[in-house]
Order: sequence, then structure tokens, then C-alpha cells
Amino acid sequence: MEKEKNELGITVKKEEDFSEWYSQVIQKAELADIRFGVQGFIVHMPWGFSIIRKIYEYLEKEVEDDGHVAFLFPTVVKEESLMKEKEHAGFTPEVFWVSEAGSKKIEERFALRPTGETQIYPLYSLWFKSHKELPFKGYQSRIPAFRNEMTTRPFLRGREFLFFETHDVFNLHEDALEQVEKDLEICNKVIKNKIKIPFLFFKRPQWDRFKGAVNTFTPDTLMPDGKRNQIASTHDLGQNFARAFGIKIMSKDEKEEYAWQTCFGPGIWRIMAALIGIHGDDKGLILPFDMAPLQIVIVPVLFSDKDSKEILKIANEIKNKLKGYRIKIDDSEASPGFKYNKWELKGVPIRLEIGPKEVKEGNITISLRNENKKFLIKLKDLTKEIEKFSKIIDKHIEEKAEEYFKNKTRDAKSFDELKKIIKAYKGFVKVPFCSVNKDGEKCADKLKEETAANVSGILYPKEDKIKEGQKCIVCGKKANHVVYVAKSY
Amino acid sequence: MEKEKNELGITVKKEEDFSEWYSQVIQKAELADIRFGVQGFIVHMPWGFSIIRKIYEYLEKEVEDDGHVAFLFPTVVKEESLMKEKEHAGFTPEVFWVSEAGSKKIEERFALRPTGETQIYPLYSLWFKSHKELPFKGYQSRIPAFRNEMTTRPFLRGREFLFFETHDVFNLHEDALEQVEKDLEICNKVIKNKIKIPFLFFKRPQWDRFKGAVNTFTPDTLMPDGKRNQIASTHDLGQNFARAFGIKIMSKDEKEEYAWQTCFGPGIWRIMAALIGIHGDDKGLILPFDMAPLQIVIVPVLFSDKDSKEILKIANEIKNKLKGYRIKIDDSEASPGFKYNKWELKGVPIRLEIGPKEVKEGNITISLRNENKKFLIKLKDLTKEIEKFSKIIDKHIEEKAEEYFKNKTRDAKSFDELKKIIKAYKGFVKVPFCSVNKDGEKCADKLKEETAANVSGILYPKEDKIKEGQKCIVCGKKANHVVYVAKSY
Repeated sequence: MEKEKNELGITVKKEEDFSEWYSQVIQKAELADIRFGVQGFIVHMPWGFSIIRKIYEYLEKEVEDDGHVAFLFPTVVKEESLMKEKEHAGFTPEVFWVSEAGSKKIEERFALRPTGETQIYPLYSLWFKSHKELPFKGYQSRIPAFRNEMTTRPFLRGREFLFFETHDVFNLHEDALEQVEKDLEICNKVIKNKIKIPFLFFKRPQWDRFKGAVNTFTPDTLMPDGKRNQIASTHDLGQNFARAFGIKIMSKDEKEEYAWQTCFGPGIWRIMAALIGIHGDDKGLILPFDMAPLQIVIVPVLFSDKDSKEILKIANEIKNKLKGYRIKIDDSEASPGFKYNKWELKGVPIRLEIGPKEVKEGNITISLRNENKKFLIKLKDLTKEIEKFSKIIDKHIEEKAEEYFKNKTRDAKSFDELKKIIKAYKGFVKVPFCSVNKDGEKCADKLKEETAANVSGILYPKEDKIKEGQKCIVCGKKANHVVYVAKSY
Repeated sequence: MEKEKNELGITVKKEEDFSEWYSQVIQKAELADIRFGVQGFIVHMPWGFSIIRKIYEYLEKEVEDDGHVAFLFPTVVKEESLMKEKEHAGFTPEVFWVSEAGSKKIEERFALRPTGETQIYPLYSLWFKSHKELPFKGYQSRIPAFRNEMTTRPFLRGREFLFFETHDVFNLHEDALEQVEKDLEICNKVIKNKIKIPFLFFKRPQWDRFKGAVNTFTPDTLMPDGKRNQIASTHDLGQNFARAFGIKIMSKDEKEEYAWQTCFGPGIWRIMAALIGIHGDDKGLILPFDMAPLQIVIVPVLFSDKDSKEILKIANEIKNKLKGYRIKIDDSEASPGFKYNKWELKGVPIRLEIGPKEVKEGNITISLRNENKKFLIKLKDLTKEIEKFSKIIDKHIEEKAEEYFKNKTRDAKSFDELKKIIKAYKGFVKVPFCSVNKDGEKCADKLKEETAANVSGILYPKEDKIKEGQKCIVCGKKANHVVYVAKSY
């Protein structure tokens, strides 16, 4: 995988051609290989998959701390189950069907799962009978889901994509609503605090709910091309699925009642796309320190064979001293410059350069990927300095991302103004809007038709105040909400 | 999931009806649910999946320590790739085909992967060009594989089953052969040392090689019904797949040569089946201490409400003191006896019983699942005692398993004797045999026909010595090997 050709670096500027930049980073930093040969199915290469495993690890820890237990359901789903919840059956046109085995047709074809509800809830109806067994919080991680998407893009849209889902069951609606808050808090803890992705929380309009849900809540971020990237969603399912799948619970006062449910799905791929797109720069990937497959690379800078032995000895001593970190000496044949570019492209946070002069003087050069800065430090202070710099790196990545996201929201007072802003400018546009219930769908459709942008919903939990007398920018009727409009992936 | 009915305990003895005992343990200890509704596709319930995650963790650690990096390939495979290696194409009659999407037929149908080779090696042919890039060791974990099996059984045979696979590429055949030894060593470290499953290593006869391999090596254990359970396999692939998929490497002396490959697949399910079958007893599951989803359960034994508060306080103190362990207080409404049975069924290694009398005297009762033994210990010594007992438990499980496996191999000198032994007795039968190359296949077929048993191969790495003048028990020609015969799953 170390082909010279791949190491030539990114040939476009992120600002000038984000789409091409994004494709090149994925290929050249060896995150994914799109040459698998079945459209929309990609190979997660070791470097990319290592980052994705970190995302999974963070999420697993948080949902387990919140009382979830892991289970694993099959990759497939029964046709009959898929159709049970009326709205949710809307997934059917997108599913892949397994309809042959060997050389024969299968009697009862089954689908590759588009999501977990219709697999899991038939079993929940068998597992839970009494209020004493609730709440139950289950999740599955490191699993695929499948939808027959027309256009595909690594980490943004795939026919197979990586999935994580919780499925919780409660006695009371208020417990379910409380879980929605907890899910959003998990997004803060993982996506914002660990992965340094800034976002806004929205309550989606009714016409853009998850199929079968009562309400859908999402953290949405923005990609550098200005498009909205929904990086997770949590759903108040009410009793809709409990009714469809017969999840009936004997309550404390001996009445049979339908359970209340929520489900939460961080978009593993979408988080990865945001990580690449928001943190990266013209040289390639930039990674928070804890997420990097390799945190420190040592590059010996050799001028003669005479130095080489001594310097490699010191490099190895350094490596041993820092063995708590993911660290490697790049002693391959390539030139130091080639190595610098290669590891910068892959986003290794810290590079240590050691040459004969530094060694003689007891120094070492530390180079930070995210800031393109170099420092000469005392070799004896190395451990302390690495610890300090790892924190500086994360803080800088976080601040840069927040700076990037700040002021990405503008106001528009009329439909014309909205159209102009959407065209010229990358981000959310706040507009007065008639309704986020069914009544508003017509206006949203018109808005979409004329701007190619979507109504993301209202800010959550604290909705923007609408001013007295404001009108919906589409229909001109009384505006009841301030909604956020953006093009989206 | 806490239905009273499920908690009634195992109703058959393991010795008397292993098959029924096995099914009941899986259901009643809540390892898997077979009511998913698509034949051969099961649900891994939280308790069972927690144990399986441990198996995965052990394996991931060992293969990573051996230099493997994780990647993730799609769930599907191109039809064209499946057919490329002539022998390997033998999998085709067993595969599931995805041939429709939404309401339309797919132009190029694709298969659910039966195993990884044909997915991975087309990419390897793109990734590796120079000898400098080798060796490369990759693996994927926590993935499913699919085969259209006619009969299915949880953890023994499924249409979907859990997979783990390494795929290694080398410049030289001798490096590949060395890897086979390393793979077998990983089996020792994980399956024998951690999971306490005893086994013998075999080199499979040529007619029972993995499709496309040069040689197949396996650790085989025996289930209590006497059937052979192949719990892993590693394959010397020679250059067979490199040739089929065009994995060509520029060697040191500038010649293009086909790479040498190995692949290794521990059977996650098969290991789970062995764990259940070999360690368990009439009460249910028995688990090595580190593998238990819950290691210690505290059961308060209450006689009056007066005691209850004090005892729960102490139970919580104990829980906090032992917080490094997976520990839980069962303060549900059920009776202590009910709780004892429930957690014994699920295989929790240590139960702490505390009642008012013990508390008053500063004592606590510790009960060991594996030995059905109880000890009264001083509360103040608890931490030390738990540490001691956790080791005693593992040692006892290991010794019991070794005792079980020992003497499970008998000799037969004639075909008639073999038939009698196979019928009466559960285990391997050593017999003189003509050939483990193609020439022996006819004899193996005849043996299978008349005994329903298989030739497992020859012991590896140290083959049994054949005595001068011994004859193949089937054809009567000169015997060249001692082979091990057993019925198998």
C-alpha cells in the first residue's frame, strides 16, 4: 500500500474544489478503496478503519455508561416485518432482496436490513411482558446497513454503510423523552468533545421525521461546501412501533399497555466525513490526538552512514520512552521530505525529527501537524512536552473547528433574499416559516424546488423566538417558527 | 427478558441428552434467540453476545500483537470474483444471491460473502506491487459470513454465522509456513489458555482441504456427544489465489513473482459451542472468570424488613469495594433460591450471599459456580479472597476440561473394530490408513459411508509413527499414516 504514486499529495486546494479534495484525501490517506467492483460498496482500509474503530469505541463506552447492553441481530430482515409499521414500510423501495440461494429461488425472500427497528421489535414483543422488565436499553455496534441509493460517496452515502443503533423501551412517554435528551448529551460528549465536530441540534419538521417516528432530533453540522451533514439522529417513536409489533406491557396497575420507545443512531460514516472535511487542510487529514492510528512518527534525518547507527539508536530509545503512545520510527529508504509529506497527508499529529546536530546538542525537533509549527525542545523534557503538545493540538483543532462553524448562520427576510444567500454563501439560513407540522410541507417543497435546499427544522431545545407580525417567506401567512435552511447531503 | 418461565432451569441431564441440554442452555441462559423468523439466522442476546465479544477481544489482541492490521470489506462479493479460483468456486452452490433491489432485478447480482478470500484478494492485487511492501498481515473481525446450509444449529451451523479472518501475504513460501505455526500458537494462547478449550492439532487430508488451499491445519475439539468440533483453521494457500487474482510482486532481483499467502479463521461460533458444551453442567453455563458478562453477583438473604436496610447498605459497600470486577446486587423481588438458580444457569462464577447472621459476625458466604462449593470467609479479607478464588475457578475449569478431553482417543486395528468403537464410544479413533493424499479419498469415502465418521487427518506437527507392516484398515494396502477418525459437526 506504499505506492509512490499515492504519495504525491493532494493536488487541489480544499477551499477551491472541496469535492475533489475530499476524494483525494480518502484515496491518498488510504481511508477507503472504492475499487471493490460493486457500486456503493467500499473497502475500509486499515488507516481509515482504525479511525472508525475509535468512533465506535467512544460511542460504545457512552451508551454502556448510560445502561445499554450490546446484542447482535442478523444482517437480514423478514419481508413481513418490514411492512408492519405503515410509515416505516416506506423503506421497502430502497431495500436489497436476497431472493436466490445457490441455483434456486428462495421461497420467502428476505431483505438486507435498511435499519434495525423491524428486525428487533418482533423479538422485543417476545422478550418484554411486565413493567418490571423496563426500562430496557439495547444497542448494536459495528454493523452494516443497506439501502439502494442512486448516487454514492464514501462516508456520505453508500449502498452499504456502517451503523450503530440503540433501541430503548420504556413504561412511560416521559421516560422516553428523557432518553432523547440523554442521546443528545451523548452526541455532545462524543461528537463535539472527543471528535471536535461542532453542530447545532434540530427538531426536524414533521415531513422529515424518521419513517414511523413521532419526532426526530438531530445534530447537524456543515461541510466546507456548505452542505448540511446530519451526523446522528434520535427518535421519539411514541407507541407507533409498539402498536405495529405488539410490544404490550403489563403495567403496575395490571393493565396491558403499549410500550414507549426511542432509538438513536449516530451516523458512523457521517461523523467520519465531518472529521475529514472539517479538520483537514490542503496537505490532507488532521486528527485529534487520541483518534490518530499513529500519534507520533519519528523521522531520522541522516546525512551519512556514520551518523545513522547512533541516530537510530536514539530513535529507538525515544520510542521505548514513549511506548504508551502509538508511535513508529519511519526508517524506510525514502527521503525525509517524502516521509514528512506522507505522514502529514495521513494526519499523524506529532512528528519528531532527529538529526546529528540536534542529537549532539541534546535537542529534538517536534513538528505539529495541525499548526504546521516546529519547536526545538530538550530531549530530556520530551515526555513532558509530548503530553503538553497533545493537549495543545486538541485544543487548537477544537478552536479552529468552532471558528469555522461560528457565523455560518445568516438571516433572510424574504424568499428572494434566501435564494441569493443560499447561492452565494455556505451555511444555514434562518427564515420565518409558517409551520413545521404537516401544514408547512407545501412551503418546504416549494423552497426545495426553487433553492435545492431543505428545511432542517427548528433549533432544539431552545427554539428561536419568532417576532410579532413575521410572515412565512414562502406563503406569506403568519410565521410560527424560525427554521434553518441549508442544502444537504 | 426475565420471564419466570425461562428461569425454571434445565430439565435434562447433560450426560443423558446432550442435544436437548445444549438447546435448553442456549435458550434459558439467554445466549441466543432462534425465533427471528428466517431459518438459520439467529439473534445474539446480550448475555451471549457479551461472551462472544470477549472471544473477539482475545483474538484481536493476539493477531495485532502478531503484526496484523484491521480492515473491513463489504458484506457482499462480486459474482465474477467468486468464480476466479477454480477450486474455491466450489462455494458457489452454497451462496445467497442479492438479485433484486426495490421492485427491480439487479443487473449484476452479487453474493453474500461465504468467506473473505474472493473479496479481499482482488484488492490485494492492486495494493501490493513490490517485495518491500511485504509481508502484509490484515484481518477483519466482528463480521458475518453466509452459507445456505440445510440444517442449522446455534453456534454450530448457521446460514449467517460470526466470522474472524486474517489474510497474510508473503514474499516466500517459508514465511507463509512460519505464519501457519504462528496461527496455531494463537489458538493455543486464546482457545486453550484463555477459554480453556482443549484440542488436538491436525493436518487435514488433501480431500478435506479448504477449497483452494494447499494445506489446511486445524485445532479440533470434541463435544460431549463425541462429535468433532473444528474450532479454527489456518491455510497454506501457496500461490493458488495469487495466481487466480494476479497478486504479482516485483522481487528483490527485479523479477515478477506471485505472492505466497495464508489465511486463518478461528470459528467464533464453534468456540462458543465448545465453551457451552465442554464447561457447562446440569445447572447450565460455566464460564472462565474473565469471560463472564457478570463475574460476581451479590444476593442479600433477608428474613425481615428490619435487616433489609442494613444488609443492602453492606451489599453496596461490597460492590464499591469490588468495583474493578463486573459485579451486581440482585435486589429483585424473587426468592434467594430463585436467584441462585438463575445466576447459576447463566454461569456467573462467584456468588456472595449475605444475611443478618453473617453480617453480625463479620462474615460472608462465597459460592463458586464451577465447583458447587461454598465457603464462609471474613468480610475484611474479601478482596484478597476474590482474587484467590478467581484463579482457583479458572484452574479448576481448565483441569476439568483437560480431564474430560484426556483419553478420548482410542486405537482400532481393523475396520470392524473401528465400527464398534465409533458406535459405543465418544471420541477420536486412531487407525492405520493408506494415504492422506488424493489416493486415500476412496478409503475415506467408504469409511464415511459405513461409520458416518470422517478422517480428521494426521496429528500436527508431530505425526504418530506408523509401525512396520501395518495395513490400511479400509483397503488393506500398506498404511503410511495414523489418522484420527471421528463423527463431526
